[in-house]
Amino acid sequence: MTYRLLAGTRVIESSAFIAAPLCGLTLAQYGADVIRFDLIGGGIDYRRLPVMPGGRSVYWTSLNKGKRSIAIDIRKPEGKELLRALVTAPGTDTAVLLTNVPSAFLSHQSLSAARPDLISCTIEGNADGSTAVDYTVHCATGYPMITGTGSREHPINQTLPAWDLACAYHAAFAVTAAVAQHRVSGQGAELRIALSDVAFTAMSHLGTVTEAALAMPERQAIGNDIYGAFGRDFVTKDDRRVMVAAVSARQWQALVQACALTEVIGAIERTLGVSYADEEDRFEGREIIAGLVARWIGARSFADVAQALDAAGVCWGIYQSMRELVQNDPRVSLNNPVFSDIETAGVGRHLAAGAAARLVDQERLPTRPAPLLGEHSDEILRDVLHLSDLSIASLHDRGVIAGPEQDPLTPGGRRSSARRETALVT
Amino acid sequence: MTYRLLAGTRVIESSAFIAAPLCGLTLAQYGADVIRFDLIGGGIDYRRLPVMPGGRSVYWTSLNKGKRSIAIDIRKPEGKELLRALVTAPGTDTAVLLTNVPSAFLSHQSLSAARPDLISCTIEGNADGSTAVDYTVHCATGYPMITGTGSREHPINQTLPAWDLACAYHAAFAVTAAVAQHRVSGQGAELRIALSDVAFTAMSHLGTVTEAALAMPERQAIGNDIYGAFGRDFVTKDDRRVMVAAVSARQWQALVQACALTEVIGAIERTLGVSYADEEDRFEGREIIAGLVARWIGARSFADVAQALDAAGVCWGIYQSMRELVQNDPRVSLNNPVFSDIETAGVGRHLAAGAAARLVDQERLPTRPAPLLGEHSDEILRDVLHLSDLSIASLHDRGVIAGPEQDPLTPGGRRSSARRETALVT
Repeated sequence: MTYRLLAGTRVIESSAFIAAPLCGLTLAQYGADVIRFDLIGGGIDYRRLPVMPGGRSVYWTSLNKGKRSIAIDIRKPEGKELLRALVTAPGTDTAVLLTNVPSAFLSHQSLSAARPDLISCTIEGNADGSTAVDYTVHCATGYPMITGTGSREHPINQTLPAWDLACAYHAAFAVTAAVAQHRVSGQGAELRIALSDVAFTAMSHLGTVTEAALAMPERQAIGNDIYGAFGRDFVTKDDRRVMVAAVSARQWQALVQACALTEVIGAIERTLGVSYADEEDRFEGREIIAGLVARWIGARSFADVAQALDAAGVCWGIYQSMRELVQNDPRVSLNNPVFSDIETAGVGRHLAAGAAARLVDQERLPTRPAPLLGEHSDEILRDVLHLSDLSIASLHDRGVIAGPEQDPLTPGGRRSSARRETALVT
Repeated sequence: MTYRLLAGTRVIESSAFIAAPLCGLTLAQYGADVIRFDLIGGGIDYRRLPVMPGGRSVYWTSLNKGKRSIAIDIRKPEGKELLRALVTAPGTDTAVLLTNVPSAFLSHQSLSAARPDLISCTIEGNADGSTAVDYTVHCATGYPMITGTGSREHPINQTLPAWDLACAYHAAFAVTAAVAQHRVSGQGAELRIALSDVAFTAMSHLGTVTEAALAMPERQAIGNDIYGAFGRDFVTKDDRRVMVAAVSARQWQALVQACALTEVIGAIERTLGVSYADEEDRFEGREIIAGLVARWIGARSFADVAQALDAAGVCWGIYQSMRELVQNDPRVSLNNPVFSDIETAGVGRHLAAGAAARLVDQERLPTRPAPLLGEHSDEILRDVLHLSDLSIASLHDRGVIAGPEQDPLTPGGRRSSARRETALVT
């Protein structure tokens, strides 16, 4: 964990894919004790690409940093009971169940009989319980038709799972709001959050639902331009690409100054009777402005452009690949206290992020790696359920629990390493 | 507000653009009393597009639903003092300052002298205080080069401000974690959250930072395909477009069944020695699979496709424009309790979203519209600072406070309505 804000909160997580695990990760990095329940051998996303030559999933280990893992066979009635006991165990001030794979034996109703102040949070695809994933929600939002050169005939999906991210953080927020209430009133809560509701409510908050409901003109694809202000990508003389944004009037003034456009912009404004300090005029006149900026940037090297834009306080950024980001950008390096090097079993030593927020004057605690499956099975049963070593050994013997697994540490776990390596270069 | 989970929390918000106002909106919808401070006449995003013929911004009103507004001239020392007094006022159990426009007179240090248990949250572009917006962060993530048909030469920006959304909800979460701590310990906290840190930490959690750090092969643009599993867009016989996802093994089985592919897939698997139940093989074989699915979907009407996919439990979605979403999708309608009709001054009656989460067995309270600028100036000074009517009148007379404004209610506020109408059809 990075900070202890949520100390005293115990979360039992039963999850797969992105939104729910990232919600749990977020709670863990801000101080909750997040216990991830896993099937013996791993759940449906345990081997998701990309995977290391030894078979360990970089996807899974990235989303489960800093959690504890208990591996239980819930096909056995005793396994189900163990998991129910963990969720409803006393001994912590707030108990949370987080899941996106709801099942009857973990229903809020049945669990809250044992622990009336339980907070449960179920993340769903759609509110009616039907399946949806980021891709099948995004296609319905209208964004693919107006992304880049997108159209009805050639929609462009997003590669970033943006709705999963929004859902994860929104769910972490809602759970924490329930925790805050619990700390005052002792009340539990049953929360349900649908991925599609997160998407469509966000669109309402961004104004796009209202625009459409009021039958305002439909947004059109405008390439890489920023809607409603000025911003676009430009190429330098030495073929580097930058994104320049002039959303606020101050940002616009900085751009005009950096590119030495004061005189020509003044002449255009007087002639056309417009004022580019006004974002509406700036958006309308974006082709004219872009032509001038492109001319200035295209005549200079990246180094000169960067220096001039920075000197004037322009809001801009560089286009780079993920590898260039990690190799060259100080914001993704040990120079940024948000990042540190961690050692993940089966993956190796690598850069990893802790909590995104910084708490001034508070020490950041080390970022912990993802657990091995069942790494904390015994410890959790001792800590939380106060089982004896004898009982725990018996649960192992009868195959009710397992762990820690050894597979990821040695190449050739479930499948051969040669095969895994092939997959990596696909 | 929708729910009262955060009742007893007072947030003073000084903000512009998306991340900070959406953070405040989120806190408001879950029960905080969010008081938005505005400049008299409005801040830098008060007229942001799209705007109504009368001049009111649909963007601004969408992001500020359910907040109270006080309009203060902070160029006057007395205005600064009023705002400081509001932030540090006693009389509520948790006091929060939320801003993305930090200024010395609102520094945590100076305010916490008056209220040591203050929670402040500053949203920044970059952690060093330099400017960044969603677009200038996104270009640096590497995603534009692998979105759709994107490449280094032709990167594709996202139209959805995904990092702003993630930042808003992450900030709402972090603030609420600090509120939860405050309710146990009485401690305050100074939080700082950078948009770029939210983006890059999310990439670490999604595994992409680790992939790059370990020098795994760089991700390539794969059009509308889903990475690491199977999913793509397909066109029906009557030219409707659908997105089909087979991420889990169960989703894959459903797709095979729906499209009657059991026999041919079996033959291919035996011949090639692969197993498409394995997501890795499925991703590798995506062109073969897509060819078969395209043939099946392309031979059928949308109605038939929808029925067959639903009957088999396939995970799929429809591509539609924002207008079609609002007109046709029951998830964005009064049939979904997350939405209701509200009346916004200067905008009219329209569909609007409350909290995305649903609290089972708790009534959803009405979604309230955005305030007029300074609509609650007098009420807030009476409520929070216990000023007399005489003092409040004097503040009005001296131009320290204002409100409620009338502009948005009548056409031709700051600019002519004819001009606004032109803007709408740009």
